[in-house]
Amino acid sequence: MYMKELVLKALRDESHVSGEDLGRRLKISRTAVWKHINELRRQGYKIASSPKLGYSYIESTSLLLPEEITPGLQTQTIGKYLLHRDEVTSTQDIAEKLAREGAKEGTVVIAETQIRGRGRKGRNWISPPEGGVYLSIILRPSLMPSRIVQIPLIAGIAANKAIRRTTPLQPSLKWPNDIIINGKKAGGILTEMNSEVDGVNYIILGIGLNVNTPVSLLAGLTDGIATSLAYECGEHVSRVKLVQILFSEFEVLYTKFVISGFASLRDEWKKLNNTTGSRVRISDGDVIEGEALDIDEDGFLLVRMENGDVRRIIGGDVTLLDN
Amino acid sequence: MYMKELVLKALRDESHVSGEDLGRRLKISRTAVWKHINELRRQGYKIASSPKLGYSYIESTSLLLPEEITPGLQTQTIGKYLLHRDEVTSTQDIAEKLAREGAKEGTVVIAETQIRGRGRKGRNWISPPEGGVYLSIILRPSLMPSRIVQIPLIAGIAANKAIRRTTPLQPSLKWPNDIIINGKKAGGILTEMNSEVDGVNYIILGIGLNVNTPVSLLAGLTDGIATSLAYECGEHVSRVKLVQILFSEFEVLYTKFVISGFASLRDEWKKLNNTTGSRVRISDGDVIEGEALDIDEDGFLLVRMENGDVRRIIGGDVTLLDN
Repeated sequence: MYMKELVLKALRDESHVSGEDLGRRLKISRTAVWKHINELRRQGYKIASSPKLGYSYIESTSLLLPEEITPGLQTQTIGKYLLHRDEVTSTQDIAEKLAREGAKEGTVVIAETQIRGRGRKGRNWISPPEGGVYLSIILRPSLMPSRIVQIPLIAGIAANKAIRRTTPLQPSLKWPNDIIINGKKAGGILTEMNSEVDGVNYIILGIGLNVNTPVSLLAGLTDGIATSLAYECGEHVSRVKLVQILFSEFEVLYTKFVISGFASLRDEWKKLNNTTGSRVRISDGDVIEGEALDIDEDGFLLVRMENGDVRRIIGGDVTLLDN
Repeated sequence: MYMKELVLKALRDESHVSGEDLGRRLKISRTAVWKHINELRRQGYKIASSPKLGYSYIESTSLLLPEEITPGLQTQTIGKYLLHRDEVTSTQDIAEKLAREGAKEGTVVIAETQIRGRGRKGRNWISPPEGGVYLSIILRPSLMPSRIVQIPLIAGIAANKAIRRTTPLQPSLKWPNDIIINGKKAGGILTEMNSEVDGVNYIILGIGLNVNTPVSLLAGLTDGIATSLAYECGEHVSRVKLVQILFSEFEVLYTKFVISGFASLRDEWKKLNNTTGSRVRISDGDVIEGEALDIDEDGFLLVRMENGDVRRIIGGDVTLLDN
C-alpha cells in the first residue's frame, strides 16, 4: 500500500486520530500527514479535523478509486490492476496503449468522464462526469480472431447480472451489444482487438453504463432513447459495488468461456436477451428486415427474411420492430 | 517538393552547377545550398565539388529514400506517402502509431534496419542494416476480421512477382507467409490487425525481404535456413526497383481482392506455392502431419491426416517433409 492508502486506512479504522500520532506511526512528518489528508479531500473523501481530536473520517469519496474498489473485490485477475483517471479521451485509448506496452490480462482503466468516449464504428459515447461507469478491460485470450464476436455477448451477460445484483432492475440484452432497461439503452459494449492472422494479441473490452447519470445529459445519444439505472429504479446506485460485482461476474463467465467455449454461455445469453423472437431491422450499410430466430454457436444472429431464407449476421444496428 | 529535393533534382538534371547559381535559382543562400549538399552526402549520395565547376552528381544513395522511390513509382495509393527511417524498433510499431493517428491507406514505413524486427507470434526478425527491405503498409479495407487470413497470401504473390521481375530468381511461396528460394527462406510476411467485431479498423502488413544482406548475418534465424536474393542470384539487386515493383504488384492484387474477393487470386497463389501437394508437419501448439491438399476459398490450408480426415488449418509453422 502507498502512504496515502495507509493514512486512509487509519482514518477508517479509528474514530479519530491526531496528525502527530499518525505521523509517528507511519514514520512521516505531521506536514506529510496533512498533505495526504488534503489529497484525499481533493479526491472527494470527507474528513473532519478538530484541534483536540485530530482527523476523523466522515464519508467516502464518490469517485471510482482503486482504494474504494480493490478492498471488496473478489477476483483473481479482472480489475486487480486498476488505473483510475478523472478525465481521459477514452478509456479504450489508454488501455490500448497499456496493452501494447505489455499490460497483463485483467488490467482495467476506469475514468470519471471521457472527452471522446467511443461507441461502435467510431461513434460518440456521451460520458458525463461522475454519474457513469466508463471502463476498459485488457484481455489476452488464446483465441482465433473470428471468435471476437462472442466477447461482447459475454460482457453483456456480466453487466446484466451485475445490474440485477445491485439494483431491483431486470435489464435485457439487445444483440449484439446493448443493455436495455424498459426499452431504453442504459449501457453498451465496445470490443476492439489487436490480432495476427491466427491469434489474438489482445482485446480491449469497453463497457459504458449510465448509472447515476442525469437523463437530461444523455439526450444527444443518436441510436435509441437513453436512460440510466438511477432514473429507472428511482434511487442512487453504488457505482463501486456495481463495478466490483461486474468484475466478479465477468471473471466467472470469461473463465468459463476460455475453458469451455461459447456454447456453455449461449443459453445464458438467450435467457437475458430481447432480440431473438422479435422482428428486427438491421442496418450495416445494407438494411435487412426479418425475424430474429436465434444466435448460433458462434454468436451470430440468425434472421429469417421475408422470402424464408435465413441469414447469419455478424453485426450492425438492430431495431426491434415489435415494440 | 522540399528544398533538399530541389537541390537534388538540379544536381541530377545538370552535369554541374555552382552553389551560387543554384542558390540564386532557388532563392536561398550559398551556405544553405552547401548545407543541403552535405545532408544529401550524409544520406549516401556521392556529390563531387570543384572550385571551378561547382557541384556535380556522381552516384545515387544506396538508401531507400522517398526521393529515390517516389519518382519511378507507378501506384495510386501504396507507397504514395512513404516514411523512411535509418533505424527503428520495428516498422510495424511506427506504422501502428500512424494508423491509430489516422494515416491513410497505402501509407508505408520503411527502415534501413530494425532493432526489434518482428516475425509471427512475437518472434525476432533479423534486420541487418542496408541490405534488406523492411517495410510496413497501412491498409484500411472494409472487411470482416476473419478475412485477414487472405492478406499475407496476397502479399506473398506480390513479393514473389516483384522478385521475378527484378532478378532471374523463381521464388515459391510456403503457406502461410514465407518466400522461399532454393528451399531457403528469403522473406516473410507479418499481418497485424486492429478491428471491431464486425469490421477491420486497419491492417499493418509487414514485409521483410533479405535482398543484399550477407548470408552470414542471417545465421541466427530459427525457423529454416535463411538466404538473400543477392546470394541466390549472385548479383547485387536494386532495392529501390524491387520496392517500386512490389508496391505496384501489391496494389494491383489488393485492388482486385477488395473488389472481387480472394477467389480471383487463389489460383495465382496456388501456381506460386510449394506447399499444396507436399507432406507437411504443422506445429501451432499441437503438431499435426499430413498431406497438404489445397487452400480453400477462405485461404485456409486443407490437410489430409493419416486417418483420412481433412483438417482446415488457419496458421502455424509449416515444415515440408518431402524436401
